[in-house]
Amino acid sequence: MAISYMELALEEAKIAADLGEVPVGAVIVSAEGRLLAQAGNRIVTQSDPTAHAEILAIRAAALVLGSERLTGCDLYVTLEPCTMCAGALSFARVRRLYFGCADPKGGGVEHGACFFDQPTCHHAPEVYGGIEDVAAAKLLKEFFRARR
Amino acid sequence: MAISYMELALEEAKIAADLGEVPVGAVIVSAEGRLLAQAGNRIVTQSDPTAHAEILAIRAAALVLGSERLTGCDLYVTLEPCTMCAGALSFARVRRLYFGCADPKGGGVEHGACFFDQPTCHHAPEVYGGIEDVAAAKLLKEFFRARR
Repeated sequence: MAISYMELALEEAKIAADLGEVPVGAVIVSAEGRLLAQAGNRIVTQSDPTAHAEILAIRAAALVLGSERLTGCDLYVTLEPCTMCAGALSFARVRRLYFGCADPKGGGVEHGACFFDQPTCHHAPEVYGGIEDVAAAKLLKEFFRARR
Repeated sequence: MAISYMELALEEAKIAADLGEVPVGAVIVSAEGRLLAQAGNRIVTQSDPTAHAEILAIRAAALVLGSERLTGCDLYVTLEPCTMCAGALSFARVRRLYFGCADPKGGGVEHGACFFDQPTCHHAPEVYGGIEDVAAAKLLKEFFRARR
């Protein structure tokens, strides 16, 4: 199940790349296994520095549920979330985070701020990294190679 | 000048409190001194865990400028930003951050993740804390006292 939701997240990442966005995609699934939201990066296309795939998916899922808390929900994302998105995941009370490839330069889960390990983090999801990481990394590498 | 923009942020915090939101307000001013955005927390009213005053102000200012980068802009906020908002400030390339009272339990600038000091932070604003901090803290104390 983890693989198929991550494949959907990878599809969102590909759409983002086609729009000239860094290819990252995210999917949110409810506690009952319902697909609540899927999104890709829209930072440039929406002129919004906060429009990371995770933030857009969280906002959409919260709207669907009519609640600012996504209790019991799981988030799949193709890249290790940055510090901003790790904070949003915590506020949203996401249950499990499944991510693709690690991000040593910008990640905020296993790198840098390691936000979920901070005393100022009041809810931390379970974290499962390395899901479909080869495919996620390939998309990113191709994107940045084409831009050089 | 710092005081008057912070007073506007405090007004936004008061409006947020009237709506049942934790009273935090934010204002963004362009490099030329133009007021670009003002916002207060809307987490509950908009069912959006990311709807912190800073995020809403950043998104609004970016829309006004038509760019995901608020280069040269300054952000005034009544409370030390959390880790999520510190990340957003960094991505938005905010020039200066003026904040009111410190937040030892949830702050991400001078507490916890101290995001701007991390190697994964690629732009850090200049930071000025303690601006109108007594008024900002009073609003928060009154809000939480009334809810107990």
